[in-house]
Amino acid sequence: MFIGTAGSGKTCLAAAFGEWLEREMEAKIAYVNLDPGCLNTPYKPDFDIRSLFTVCELMERENLGPNGAMIRAAELMEESVNDIVDKIAQLEADLKLIDTPGQMEIFVFRSAGPKIAEALRSKDVTVTVYLIDPLLAKTPTGLAVAVSLSIATQLRLGTPTFPILNKVDLVKEEEIDRLLMDFDYLRDKIVEEQSGAIIDLALRYVDTIEILSSAVRLVKVSAKTGEGMDQLYDIVRESICVCGDLT
Amino acid sequence: MFIGTAGSGKTCLAAAFGEWLEREMEAKIAYVNLDPGCLNTPYKPDFDIRSLFTVCELMERENLGPNGAMIRAAELMEESVNDIVDKIAQLEADLKLIDTPGQMEIFVFRSAGPKIAEALRSKDVTVTVYLIDPLLAKTPTGLAVAVSLSIATQLRLGTPTFPILNKVDLVKEEEIDRLLMDFDYLRDKIVEEQSGAIIDLALRYVDTIEILSSAVRLVKVSAKTGEGMDQLYDIVRESICVCGDLT
Repeated sequence: MFIGTAGSGKTCLAAAFGEWLEREMEAKIAYVNLDPGCLNTPYKPDFDIRSLFTVCELMERENLGPNGAMIRAAELMEESVNDIVDKIAQLEADLKLIDTPGQMEIFVFRSAGPKIAEALRSKDVTVTVYLIDPLLAKTPTGLAVAVSLSIATQLRLGTPTFPILNKVDLVKEEEIDRLLMDFDYLRDKIVEEQSGAIIDLALRYVDTIEILSSAVRLVKVSAKTGEGMDQLYDIVRESICVCGDLT
Repeated sequence: MFIGTAGSGKTCLAAAFGEWLEREMEAKIAYVNLDPGCLNTPYKPDFDIRSLFTVCELMERENLGPNGAMIRAAELMEESVNDIVDKIAQLEADLKLIDTPGQMEIFVFRSAGPKIAEALRSKDVTVTVYLIDPLLAKTPTGLAVAVSLSIATQLRLGTPTFPILNKVDLVKEEEIDRLLMDFDYLRDKIVEEQSGAIIDLALRYVDTIEILSSAVRLVKVSAKTGEGMDQLYDIVRESICVCGDLT
Protein backbone atom coordinates (compact mmCIF):
# COMPACT_ATOMS: atom_id res chain seq x y z
CA MET A 1 0.00 0.00 0.00
CA PHE A 2 1.49 3.32 -1.06
CA ILE A 3 0.89 6.27 1.28
CA GLY A 4 2.29 9.77 1.20
CA THR A 5 1.35 13.44 1.24
CA ALA A 6 -0.25 15.03 -1.83
CA GLY A 7 2.21 15.16 -4.70
CA SER A 8 4.73 12.75 -3.18
CA GLY A 9 4.40 10.49 -6.23
CA LYS A 10 2.42 7.45 -5.05
CA THR A 11 0.76 6.77 -8.39
CA CYS A 12 3.91 7.08 -10.49
CA LEU A 13 5.85 4.91 -8.07
CA ALA A 14 3.15 2.20 -8.07
CA ALA A 15 3.31 2.16 -11.88
CA ALA A 16 7.11 2.15 -12.06
CA PHE A 17 7.53 -0.48 -9.34
CA GLY A 18 4.88 -2.71 -10.92
CA GLU A 19 6.52 -2.47 -14.32
CA TRP A 20 9.90 -3.29 -12.80
CA LEU A 21 8.49 -6.32 -10.95
CA GLU A 22 6.83 -7.61 -14.12
CA ARG A 23 9.98 -7.15 -16.18
CA GLU A 24 12.75 -8.08 -13.76
CA MET A 25 11.00 -10.57 -11.49
CA GLU A 26 8.47 -11.89 -13.99
CA ALA A 27 5.91 -11.34 -11.23
CA LYS A 28 2.18 -11.21 -11.79
CA ILE A 29 1.10 -7.83 -10.44
CA ALA A 30 -2.39 -6.58 -9.64
CA TYR A 31 -2.91 -2.80 -9.56
CA VAL A 32 -5.51 -1.32 -7.22
CA ASN A 33 -6.54 2.31 -7.41
CA LEU A 34 -8.20 3.63 -4.24
CA ASP A 35 -7.98 7.28 -5.28
CA PRO A 36 -11.45 8.44 -6.36
CA GLY A 37 -10.01 11.85 -7.26
CA CYS A 38 -7.54 11.00 -10.01
CA LEU A 39 -8.32 11.51 -13.67
CA ASN A 40 -5.93 8.94 -15.14
CA THR A 41 -3.53 6.32 -13.85
CA PRO A 42 -0.33 5.32 -15.66
CA TYR A 43 -1.13 1.64 -14.85
CA LYS A 44 -4.25 -0.31 -15.83
CA PRO A 45 -6.16 -0.87 -12.57
CA ASP A 46 -7.41 -4.40 -11.86
CA PHE A 47 -9.68 -2.85 -9.27
CA ASP A 48 -10.59 0.82 -9.38
CA ILE A 49 -12.55 2.68 -6.69
CA ARG A 50 -13.74 4.96 -9.49
CA SER A 51 -16.00 2.11 -10.64
CA LEU A 52 -17.97 2.86 -7.44
CA PHE A 53 -17.73 6.68 -7.31
CA THR A 54 -15.46 9.56 -8.29
CA VAL A 55 -14.79 12.92 -6.66
CA CYS A 56 -15.91 14.71 -9.85
CA GLU A 57 -19.25 12.85 -9.89
CA LEU A 58 -19.81 13.73 -6.24
CA MET A 59 -19.04 17.39 -6.89
CA GLU A 60 -21.70 17.45 -9.56
CA ARG A 61 -24.32 15.14 -8.04
CA GLU A 62 -24.17 16.49 -4.48
CA ASN A 63 -23.24 20.05 -5.42
CA LEU A 64 -20.03 19.96 -3.39
CA GLY A 65 -16.72 21.75 -3.76
CA PRO A 66 -13.59 19.62 -4.28
CA ASN A 67 -12.83 19.52 -0.52
CA GLY A 68 -16.36 18.54 0.39
CA ALA A 69 -16.48 15.90 -2.33
CA MET A 70 -13.20 14.36 -1.14
CA ILE A 71 -14.53 14.07 2.39
CA ARG A 72 -17.77 12.59 1.05
CA ALA A 73 -15.73 10.11 -1.01
CA ALA A 74 -13.84 9.08 2.14
CA GLU A 75 -17.17 8.45 3.88
CA LEU A 76 -18.44 6.37 0.97
CA MET A 77 -15.17 4.42 0.98
CA GLU A 78 -15.64 3.69 4.66
CA GLU A 79 -19.18 2.42 4.01
CA SER A 80 -17.90 0.11 1.26
CA VAL A 81 -14.83 -1.29 3.05
CA ASN A 82 -15.95 -4.93 2.96
CA ASP A 83 -16.94 -4.77 -0.68
CA ILE A 84 -13.67 -3.08 -1.66
CA VAL A 85 -11.46 -5.46 0.30
CA ASP A 86 -13.34 -8.53 -0.98
CA LYS A 87 -12.68 -7.40 -4.52
CA ILE A 88 -9.00 -6.84 -3.79
CA ALA A 89 -8.74 -10.25 -2.11
CA GLN A 90 -10.21 -11.94 -5.19
CA LEU A 91 -7.49 -10.56 -7.47
CA GLU A 92 -4.97 -13.22 -8.37
CA ALA A 93 -1.41 -11.96 -8.31
CA ASP A 94 2.00 -12.46 -6.72
CA LEU A 95 1.85 -8.93 -5.37
CA LYS A 96 -0.94 -6.36 -5.24
CA LEU A 97 0.06 -2.71 -5.44
CA ILE A 98 -2.48 -0.43 -3.79
CA ASP A 99 -2.50 3.24 -4.69
CA THR A 100 -4.31 5.45 -2.15
CA PRO A 101 -6.05 8.86 -2.24
CA GLY A 102 -3.97 11.81 -3.40
CA GLN A 103 -4.48 13.65 -0.11
CA MET A 104 -3.31 11.22 2.58
CA GLU A 105 -5.16 12.96 5.40
CA ILE A 106 -8.62 11.92 4.23
CA PHE A 107 -7.41 8.30 4.17
CA VAL A 108 -5.01 8.01 7.12
CA PHE A 109 -6.47 10.54 9.58
CA ARG A 110 -10.10 9.63 9.00
CA SER A 111 -11.63 6.15 9.35
CA ALA A 112 -11.49 4.78 5.80
CA GLY A 113 -7.75 4.01 5.78
CA PRO A 114 -7.55 2.25 9.15
CA LYS A 115 -10.65 0.17 8.32
CA ILE A 116 -9.37 -0.83 4.89
CA ALA A 117 -5.94 -1.66 6.33
CA GLU A 118 -7.50 -3.79 9.06
CA ALA A 119 -9.66 -5.70 6.58
CA LEU A 120 -6.72 -6.19 4.21
CA ARG A 121 -4.52 -7.50 7.03
CA SER A 122 -7.15 -10.09 7.92
CA LYS A 123 -6.87 -11.54 4.41
CA ASP A 124 -3.33 -10.91 3.20
CA VAL A 125 0.09 -9.85 4.41
CA THR A 126 -0.03 -6.06 4.08
CA VAL A 127 2.89 -3.64 4.05
CA THR A 128 2.81 0.14 3.78
CA VAL A 129 5.40 2.01 1.77
CA TYR A 130 5.43 5.60 3.06
CA LEU A 131 6.69 8.08 0.45
CA ILE A 132 8.63 11.02 1.79
CA ASP A 133 8.34 13.97 -0.56
CA PRO A 134 11.72 15.64 -1.15
CA LEU A 135 9.86 18.98 -1.11
CA LEU A 136 9.15 18.35 2.58
CA ALA A 137 12.47 16.63 3.32
CA LYS A 138 14.60 19.48 1.97
CA THR A 139 14.84 21.24 5.34
CA PRO A 140 16.09 19.43 8.47
CA THR A 141 12.89 20.16 10.41
CA GLY A 142 10.79 19.16 7.39
CA LEU A 143 12.63 15.86 7.20
CA ALA A 144 11.95 15.21 10.89
CA VAL A 145 8.27 16.02 10.32
CA ALA A 146 8.18 13.67 7.31
CA VAL A 147 9.55 10.76 9.35
CA SER A 148 7.02 11.50 12.09
CA LEU A 149 4.20 11.32 9.52
CA SER A 150 5.45 7.89 8.55
CA ILE A 151 5.28 6.83 12.20
CA ALA A 152 1.79 8.32 12.56
CA THR A 153 0.74 6.36 9.47
CA GLN A 154 2.04 3.14 11.00
CA LEU A 155 0.11 3.82 14.20
CA ARG A 156 -3.10 4.53 12.27
CA LEU A 157 -2.93 1.66 9.79
CA GLY A 158 -1.28 -0.96 12.01
CA THR A 159 0.82 -2.31 9.14
CA PRO A 160 4.60 -2.58 8.94
CA THR A 161 5.55 0.77 7.40
CA PHE A 162 8.68 1.69 5.50
CA PRO A 163 9.57 5.28 4.82
CA ILE A 164 11.19 5.75 1.44
CA LEU A 165 12.51 8.87 -0.19
CA ASN A 166 10.96 9.35 -3.61
CA LYS A 167 12.11 11.49 -6.55
CA VAL A 168 15.77 11.15 -5.60
CA ASP A 169 16.59 12.43 -9.05
CA LEU A 170 15.52 15.84 -7.71
CA VAL A 171 17.37 16.07 -4.38
CA LYS A 172 20.77 16.11 -2.74
CA GLU A 173 20.23 12.67 -1.29
CA GLU A 174 23.66 12.47 0.37
CA GLU A 175 22.62 15.31 2.67
CA ILE A 176 19.31 13.67 3.57
CA ASP A 177 21.11 10.37 4.13
CA ARG A 178 23.54 12.01 6.49
CA LEU A 179 20.76 13.84 8.38
CA LEU A 180 18.97 10.55 9.00
CA MET A 181 22.02 8.41 9.71
CA ASP A 182 23.54 10.89 12.13
CA PHE A 183 20.97 12.45 14.42
CA ASP A 184 23.54 14.75 16.02
CA TYR A 185 24.17 16.21 12.59
CA LEU A 186 20.40 16.63 12.17
CA ARG A 187 20.29 18.44 15.53
CA ASP A 188 23.12 20.78 14.50
CA LYS A 189 21.35 21.58 11.24
CA ILE A 190 18.07 22.28 13.03
CA VAL A 191 19.82 24.69 15.39
CA GLU A 192 21.19 26.47 12.31
CA GLU A 193 17.80 26.49 10.59
CA GLN A 194 15.46 27.52 13.39
CA SER A 195 15.42 30.30 15.93
CA GLY A 196 13.87 31.05 19.29
CA ALA A 197 11.63 28.68 21.22
CA ILE A 198 11.02 26.51 18.19
CA ILE A 199 14.58 25.10 18.45
CA ASP A 200 13.84 23.34 21.70
CA LEU A 201 10.62 21.89 20.32
CA ALA A 202 12.35 20.72 17.15
CA LEU A 203 15.22 19.10 19.07
CA ARG A 204 12.84 17.18 21.30
CA TYR A 205 11.02 16.10 18.19
CA VAL A 206 14.29 14.71 16.83
CA ASP A 207 14.91 12.84 20.11
CA THR A 208 11.65 11.01 19.56
CA ILE A 209 12.27 10.21 15.97
CA GLU A 210 15.66 8.85 16.91
CA ILE A 211 14.04 6.48 19.39
CA LEU A 212 11.10 5.51 17.21
CA SER A 213 12.98 5.05 14.00
CA SER A 214 15.89 3.13 15.47
CA ALA A 215 16.10 1.00 12.35
CA VAL A 216 15.45 3.52 9.62
CA ARG A 217 17.06 2.22 6.51
CA LEU A 218 15.79 4.83 4.13
CA VAL A 219 15.43 3.37 0.68
CA LYS A 220 15.75 5.96 -2.05
CA VAL A 221 13.82 5.54 -5.25
CA SER A 222 12.98 7.39 -8.41
CA ALA A 223 9.97 6.41 -10.45
CA LYS A 224 11.52 8.47 -13.22
CA THR A 225 14.96 6.85 -13.47
CA GLY A 226 14.07 3.45 -11.99
CA GLU A 227 16.68 3.86 -9.25
CA GLY A 228 16.10 1.89 -6.07
CA MET A 229 13.41 -0.49 -7.32
CA ASP A 230 15.52 -3.50 -6.32
CA GLN A 231 15.93 -2.13 -2.79
CA LEU A 232 12.22 -1.40 -2.53
CA TYR A 233 11.56 -4.98 -3.57
CA ASP A 234 13.99 -6.21 -0.90
CA ILE A 235 12.27 -4.40 1.97
CA VAL A 236 8.82 -5.51 0.83
CA ARG A 237 9.98 -9.11 0.43
CA GLU A 238 11.82 -9.18 3.77
CA SER A 239 8.80 -7.76 5.50
CA ILE A 240 6.55 -10.40 3.96
CA CYS A 241 8.95 -13.15 5.04
CA VAL A 242 9.07 -11.83 8.61
CA CYS A 243 5.28 -11.83 8.71
CA GLY A 244 5.61 -15.51 7.85
CA ASP A 245 3.04 -15.86 5.12
CA LEU A 246 5.37 -16.19 2.17
CA THR A 247 8.90 -17.44 1.87
CA MET B 1 -4.78 31.14 11.53
CA PHE B 2 -6.99 28.06 11.63
CA ILE B 3 -5.34 24.76 10.67
CA GLY B 4 -6.65 21.22 10.87
CA THR B 5 -7.21 18.05 8.88
CA ALA B 6 -9.93 17.93 6.22
CA GLY B 7 -13.36 18.12 7.80
CA SER B 8 -12.14 19.27 11.22
CA GLY B 9 -14.32 22.37 10.93
CA LYS B 10 -11.92 25.27 10.32
CA THR B 11 -14.35 27.33 8.25
CA CYS B 12 -17.32 26.97 10.60
CA LEU B 13 -15.16 27.76 13.61
CA ALA B 14 -13.71 30.88 11.95
CA ALA B 15 -17.26 32.06 11.27
CA ALA B 16 -18.58 31.24 14.75
CA PHE B 17 -15.57 32.71 16.55
CA GLY B 18 -15.71 35.88 14.46
CA GLU B 19 -19.40 36.33 15.13
CA TRP B 20 -18.82 35.81 18.85
CA LEU B 21 -15.97 38.36 18.91
CA GLU B 22 -18.09 40.93 17.07
CA ARG B 23 -21.05 40.41 19.38
CA GLU B 24 -19.43 39.86 22.78
CA MET B 25 -16.22 41.87 22.44
CA GLU B 26 -17.45 44.44 19.94
CA ALA B 27 -14.27 43.67 18.02
CA LYS B 28 -13.69 44.61 14.42
CA ILE B 29 -12.92 41.33 12.67
CA ALA B 30 -11.42 40.74 9.23
CA TYR B 31 -12.07 37.38 7.59
CA VAL B 32 -9.49 35.88 5.25
CA ASN B 33 -10.20 32.85 3.11
CA LEU B 34 -7.08 31.03 1.87
CA ASP B 35 -8.98 27.93 0.71
CA PRO B 36 -9.20 28.02 -3.09
CA GLY B 37 -11.27 24.82 -3.04
CA CYS B 38 -14.34 25.88 -1.08
CA LEU B 39 -17.62 26.74 -2.79
CA ASN B 40 -19.08 29.00 -0.10
CA THR B 41 -18.00 30.46 3.22
CA PRO B 42 -20.40 31.19 6.09
CA TYR B 43 -18.55 34.50 6.66
CA LYS B 44 -18.06 37.33 4.18
CA PRO B 45 -14.33 37.28 3.31
CA ASP B 46 -12.47 40.60 3.41
CA PHE B 47 -9.75 38.91 1.40
CA ASP B 48 -10.46 35.77 -0.60
CA ILE B 49 -7.81 33.69 -2.38
CA ARG B 50 -10.57 32.76 -4.83
CA SER B 51 -10.28 36.25 -6.27
CA LEU B 52 -6.91 35.03 -7.62
CA PHE B 53 -7.75 31.41 -8.57
CA THR B 54 -10.02 28.54 -7.59
CA VAL B 55 -9.51 24.77 -7.65
CA CYS B 56 -12.55 24.38 -9.93
CA GLU B 57 -11.15 26.87 -12.45
CA LEU B 58 -7.79 25.07 -12.43
CA MET B 59 -9.49 21.72 -13.01
CA GLU B 60 -11.16 23.13 -16.08
CA ARG B 61 -8.44 25.39 -17.43
CA GLU B 62 -5.51 23.01 -16.93
CA ASN B 63 -7.51 19.81 -17.40
CA LEU B 64 -6.55 18.51 -13.94
CA GLY B 65 -8.32 16.18 -11.53
CA PRO B 66 -9.25 17.57 -8.09
CA ASN B 67 -5.98 16.33 -6.51
CA GLY B 68 -3.84 17.78 -9.26
CA ALA B 69 -5.71 21.08 -9.17
CA MET B 70 -5.23 21.36 -5.39
CA ILE B 71 -1.49 20.85 -5.74
CA ARG B 72 -1.41 23.37 -8.58
CA ALA B 73 -3.35 25.82 -6.39
CA ALA B 74 -0.77 25.36 -3.61
CA GLU B 75 1.99 26.16 -6.10
CA LEU B 76 0.17 29.29 -7.27
CA MET B 77 -0.35 30.32 -3.65
CA GLU B 78 3.38 29.97 -3.04
CA GLU B 79 4.14 32.15 -6.06
CA SER B 80 1.76 34.85 -4.76
CA VAL B 81 2.83 34.86 -1.10
CA ASN B 82 3.93 38.50 -1.02
CA ASP B 83 0.84 39.72 -2.79
CA ILE B 84 -1.46 37.69 -0.50
CA VAL B 85 0.25 38.76 2.71
CA ASP B 86 0.35 42.42 1.65
CA LYS B 87 -3.40 42.32 1.12
CA ILE B 88 -3.96 40.70 4.50
CA ALA B 89 -1.68 43.28 6.18
CA GLN B 90 -3.70 46.13 4.66
CA LEU B 91 -6.94 44.93 6.25
CA GLU B 92 -7.90 47.08 9.20
CA ALA B 93 -9.22 45.06 12.11
CA ASP B 94 -8.67 44.21 15.77
CA LEU B 95 -8.20 40.58 14.82
CA LYS B 96 -7.85 38.83 11.48
CA LEU B 97 -9.19 35.29 11.21
CA ILE B 98 -7.44 33.29 8.53
CA ASP B 99 -9.13 30.20 7.17
CA THR B 100 -6.74 27.78 5.37
CA PRO B 101 -7.12 25.10 2.68
CA GLY B 102 -9.50 22.24 3.40
CA GLN B 103 -6.72 19.66 3.11
CA MET B 104 -4.04 20.78 5.55
CA GLU B 105 -1.27 18.73 3.93
CA ILE B 106 -1.07 20.87 0.80
CA PHE B 107 -0.64 23.92 3.03
CA VAL B 108 1.43 22.71 5.99
CA PHE B 109 3.54 19.97 4.41
CA ARG B 110 4.32 21.84 1.21
CA SER B 111 5.93 25.28 0.96
CA ALA B 112 2.91 27.62 0.73
CA GLY B 113 1.94 27.45 4.42
CA PRO B 114 5.42 27.98 5.90
CA LYS B 115 6.09 30.89 3.49
CA ILE B 116 2.76 32.57 4.23
CA ALA B 117 3.26 32.10 7.98
CA GLU B 118 6.75 33.57 7.80
CA ALA B 119 5.55 36.62 5.85
CA LEU B 120 2.59 37.11 8.20
CA ARG B 121 4.85 36.92 11.26
CA SER B 122 7.07 39.64 9.83
CA LYS B 123 4.08 42.01 9.75
CA ASP B 124 1.75 40.97 12.57
CA VAL B 125 1.58 38.81 15.68
CA THR B 126 0.42 35.47 14.31
CA VAL B 127 -1.05 32.55 16.23
CA THR B 128 -2.17 29.17 14.92
CA VAL B 129 -5.25 27.45 16.30
CA TYR B 130 -4.91 23.74 15.49
CA LEU B 131 -8.27 21.98 15.30
CA ILE B 132 -8.33 18.39 16.48
CA ASP B 133 -11.10 16.49 14.76
CA PRO B 134 -13.06 14.33 17.23
CA LEU B 135 -13.24 11.67 14.49
CA LEU B 136 -9.48 11.27 14.85
CA ALA B 137 -9.40 11.84 18.61
CA LYS B 138 -11.95 9.14 19.38
CA THR B 139 -9.32 6.40 19.80
CA PRO B 140 -6.39 6.81 22.22
CA THR B 141 -3.81 6.30 19.47
CA GLY B 142 -5.71 8.65 17.17
CA LEU B 143 -5.66 11.32 19.87
CA ALA B 144 -1.90 10.92 20.25
CA VAL B 145 -1.51 11.21 16.47
CA ALA B 146 -3.71 14.34 16.47
CA VAL B 147 -1.55 16.06 19.09
CA SER B 148 1.56 15.13 17.13
CA LEU B 149 0.08 16.75 14.01
CA SER B 150 -0.39 19.92 16.02
CA ILE B 151 3.29 19.80 17.01
CA ALA B 152 4.33 19.13 13.39
CA THR B 153 2.25 22.16 12.35
CA GLN B 154 4.03 24.34 14.88
CA LEU B 155 7.41 23.17 13.59
CA ARG B 156 6.43 23.86 9.99
CA LEU B 157 4.76 27.25 10.49
CA GLY B 158 6.92 28.57 13.32
CA THR B 159 3.97 30.24 15.05
CA PRO B 160 2.70 29.65 18.59
CA THR B 161 0.21 26.82 18.07
CA PHE B 162 -2.71 25.83 20.26
CA PRO B 163 -4.45 22.51 19.81
CA ILE B 164 -8.18 22.75 20.41
CA LEU B 165 -10.83 20.08 20.30
CA ASN B 166 -13.62 21.06 17.95
CA LYS B 167 -17.19 19.74 17.68
CA VAL B 168 -17.34 18.91 21.38
CA ASP B 169 -21.10 18.62 20.97
CA LEU B 170 -20.32 15.30 19.21
CA VAL B 171 -17.85 13.63 21.58
CA LYS B 172 -17.37 12.30 25.09
CA GLU B 173 -15.05 15.13 25.99
CA GLU B 174 -14.52 13.98 29.58
CA GLU B 175 -12.76 10.88 28.25
CA ILE B 176 -10.53 12.90 25.90
CA ASP B 177 -9.78 15.33 28.72
CA ARG B 178 -8.72 12.51 30.98
CA LEU B 179 -6.58 10.91 28.27
CA LEU B 180 -4.68 14.16 27.78
CA MET B 181 -4.44 15.18 31.42
CA ASP B 182 -3.25 11.78 32.60
CA PHE B 183 -0.72 10.24 30.23
CA ASP B 184 -0.57 7.00 32.26
CA TYR B 185 -4.28 6.60 31.61
CA LEU B 186 -3.63 7.22 27.90
CA ARG B 187 -0.91 4.54 27.98
CA ASP B 188 -3.27 2.04 29.63
CA LYS B 189 -5.92 2.73 27.03
CA ILE B 190 -3.44 2.32 24.18
CA VAL B 191 -2.36 -1.06 25.55
CA GLU B 192 -6.04 -2.07 25.59
CA GLU B 193 -6.61 -0.74 22.08
CA GLN B 194 -3.57 -2.01 20.22
CA SER B 195 -1.87 -5.37 19.86
CA GLY B 196 1.54 -6.73 18.94
CA ALA B 197 4.55 -4.63 18.06
CA ILE B 198 2.45 -1.53 17.50
CA ILE B 199 1.94 -1.16 21.28
CA ASP B 200 5.59 -0.37 21.88
CA LEU B 201 5.64 2.15 19.06
CA ALA B 202 2.46 3.81 20.31
CA LEU B 203 3.75 4.02 23.89
CA ARG B 204 6.99 5.64 22.79
CA TYR B 205 4.91 8.06 20.75
CA VAL B 206 2.99 8.99 23.89
CA ASP B 207 6.26 9.53 25.79
CA THR B 208 7.19 12.13 23.24
CA ILE B 209 3.88 13.87 23.24
CA GLU B 210 4.04 14.01 27.01
CA ILE B 211 7.38 15.82 26.82
CA LEU B 212 6.48 18.08 23.91
CA SER B 213 3.05 19.08 25.08
CA SER B 214 3.97 19.70 28.70
CA ALA B 215 1.56 22.59 28.88
CA VAL B 216 -1.36 21.28 26.87
CA ARG B 217 -4.44 23.08 28.05
CA LEU B 218 -6.85 21.69 25.54
CA VAL B 219 -9.60 24.19 24.88
CA LYS B 220 -12.82 22.58 23.76
CA VAL B 221 -15.11 24.42 21.40
CA SER B 222 -18.20 23.90 19.35
CA ALA B 223 -18.94 26.14 16.40
CA LYS B 224 -22.46 24.75 16.58
CA THR B 225 -23.35 25.51 20.20
CA GLY B 226 -20.90 28.38 20.78
CA GLU B 227 -19.28 26.54 23.67
CA GLY B 228 -15.69 27.49 24.47
CA MET B 229 -15.48 30.73 22.45
CA ASP B 230 -14.47 32.68 25.55
CA GLN B 231 -11.65 30.24 26.29
CA LEU B 232 -10.48 30.33 22.69
CA TYR B 233 -10.38 34.12 22.97
CA ASP B 234 -8.37 33.84 26.20
CA ILE B 235 -5.62 31.70 24.68
CA VAL B 236 -5.39 33.88 21.58
CA ARG B 237 -5.26 37.05 23.69
CA GLU B 238 -2.70 35.64 26.15
CA SER B 239 -0.53 34.52 23.30
CA ILE B 240 -0.65 37.94 21.69
CA CYS B 241 0.28 39.57 25.02
CA VAL B 242 3.22 37.19 25.54
CA CYS B 243 4.48 38.05 22.07
CA GLY B 244 4.49 41.60 23.35
CA ASP B 245 2.86 43.43 20.48
CA LEU B 246 -0.50 44.10 22.07
CA THR B 247 -1.62 44.45 25.64
